Amino acid sequence: MTLQIFAATMLPAIESELRQAIAVTERLGLEELHYMLAYHMGWQGEGAGSRAQGKRIRPLLVLLTALAASPRSEVEVWQAALPAAVAVELVHNFSLIHDDIEDNSLLRRGRPTLWTQWGVPQAINTGDALFSLAHLAILRLEETAPAAALAAARTLQETCLHLTQGQYLDIGYSTRTGLTTADYWPMVSGKTAALLAACTELGALVAGSAARSHYRDFGRLLGLAFQAQDDLLGIWGDVEATGKSADSDLVEGKKSLPVLFGLEQSGPFAARWQKGPITPEEVPDLAAQLEAEGARNFTISEVDRLTSQALQALESAQPQGVAGEALRELALKLLNRQK
Amino acid sequence: MTLQIFAATMLPAIESELRQAIAVTERLGLEELHYMLAYHMGWQGEGAGSRAQGKRIRPLLVLLTALAASPRSEVEVWQAALPAAVAVELVHNFSLIHDDIEDNSLLRRGRPTLWTQWGVPQAINTGDALFSLAHLAILRLEETAPAAALAAARTLQETCLHLTQGQYLDIGYSTRTGLTTADYWPMVSGKTAALLAACTELGALVAGSAARSHYRDFGRLLGLAFQAQDDLLGIWGDVEATGKSADSDLVEGKKSLPVLFGLEQSGPFAARWQKGPITPEEVPDLAAQLEAEGARNFTISEVDRLTSQALQALESAQPQGVAGEALRELALKLLNRQK
Repeated sequence: MTLQIFAATMLPAIESELRQAIAVTERLGLEELHYMLAYHMGWQGEGAGSRAQGKRIRPLLVLLTALAASPRSEVEVWQAALPAAVAVELVHNFSLIHDDIEDNSLLRRGRPTLWTQWGVPQAINTGDALFSLAHLAILRLEETAPAAALAAARTLQETCLHLTQGQYLDIGYSTRTGLTTADYWPMVSGKTAALLAACTELGALVAGSAARSHYRDFGRLLGLAFQAQDDLLGIWGDVEATGKSADSDLVEGKKSLPVLFGLEQSGPFAARWQKGPITPEEVPDLAAQLEAEGARNFTISEVDRLTSQALQALESAQPQGVAGEALRELALKLLNRQK
Repeated sequence: MTLQIFAATMLPAIESELRQAIAVTERLGLEELHYMLAYHMGWQGEGAGSRAQGKRIRPLLVLLTALAASPRSEVEVWQAALPAAVAVELVHNFSLIHDDIEDNSLLRRGRPTLWTQWGVPQAINTGDALFSLAHLAILRLEETAPAAALAAARTLQETCLHLTQGQYLDIGYSTRTGLTTADYWPMVSGKTAALLAACTELGALVAGSAARSHYRDFGRLLGLAFQAQDDLLGIWGDVEATGKSADSDLVEGKKSLPVLFGLEQSGPFAARWQKGPITPEEVPDLAAQLEAEGARNFTISEVDRLTSQALQALESAQPQGVAGEALRELALKLLNRQK
């Protein structure tokens, strides 16, 4: 409930700042470039609307962390942290544009991906434009939190480098054999955990908190837990509840945590996997086989371990007041948990 | 001669800093990502060497501008400006990686482009990594020129946004009809002039010069003159002298300044152009036709006009000492002129 109250005020402010950040392309008379960005952000074109915009979890995480980590009044902290919140969401969206090209993905949030609509050249370039807009956004901390501006810009840029490391491993894994669960963590550290770690670190940085590294750990562990949970749902998820196609990860050949666990067992699952692409018809039996080999329980225990480590890191950070409660609530919501 | 003396000391320092800037990927154990970067920078792989590295004109421009714009001693200014010089060269190289994918280019500096060797997904991602490394490099100004660090980071990032604007127009032009010479300038302002403007502006910024906008104008006009000159050589250049294939621009269908001028005339050149791709055999006659319609003289006069405006801007900046002389020399060298 606490989260809902914060979100009701924060989300419109985030949306408005995001629109301002990309409005510069419109002012420059580059209507189509602006339109491509607005399409990707979920504001324009067919299917525009809240589903196409995503949940804006990352900017919420920045703002709530800043509030929970600061002794100052809410209004001040808000004003200070918005450039960082917006920057993180723009980086997230930039990475989606490029990932969709790299992964040959046709759909994003239920709509055709940018490259399928405007071609690969314009999509690469539009991603690059969004990348610059993201980093220009965070430099506006100079006005709202000058002492944190340079460190925040560096943190975000190091995060982007980390994202490319995760993506580099992920692209390489698609053709590599002999992978184990040990190969999983460096990849998701970059692809998922790095940006969530940046969210909480940037919030703490703007707040001038001494607990910056605890907040960073919280975000990083939350990201790892989230990815493992997402992998679990990708094979055994309830299609109705998650909105994801439950069989897609096996059919897509995604080397997710349960799959890597299964490959390590060198049992019937691994034998089938190595024979080549899996058809949708095979999925129910193969998912059951993977579960029988222990992959589901292993993944659940990893999610539990990481979730509890994340919440422990949050506790160590000693978040303050109702914003601290909302932060905990957001973490559990991200992991599809009730408490 | 003055330029040669500076270059002999500066180029090794630039190369060493560039290597350090990308070494972080090697330290992270990402050998192949590091190798891809080192390949693109011209340090490793088949054909590595000075030709594959390019001329490093941009970082030289940063360092010479800083020297010419500062009253401080050489050693201090060097130390201060190197992060900016390196950052600009990394941005240039990042943009080449993505441009080569977008333009479907097979060769770069005489070697196979990154995407042809490692595929489009890894090449997009490696470009993104280089983008981050470039911006991390400029943030190191915090150590050498702290007062300029934030403004420099913003200038470089705005420049990157400008690059994407130029590229957006360029990609769009390839399928647009009815273009005129007026459409040329906004495109090359982004694609070529923006980064050269950033070089001279960043040099002046690090030097704390009051003539920052004059230096910026110098770089920008130099960039426009350079591009028009490059377009001239792309049709009527001496293959031996330039190392470029003289007929390539017409065969490639590049909408360069002389071509846009020719299209505006609606004469025999435009009629042939609109019929479709031009074969190498047609080039001598068509180039002569384009020249007869006035495109060559028009382009030469534009190069002359812009060169003289660039040199005037440099004079207004009042560059100091031998570095000022070297800066003028570098400008003329870039334009393939003797004086």
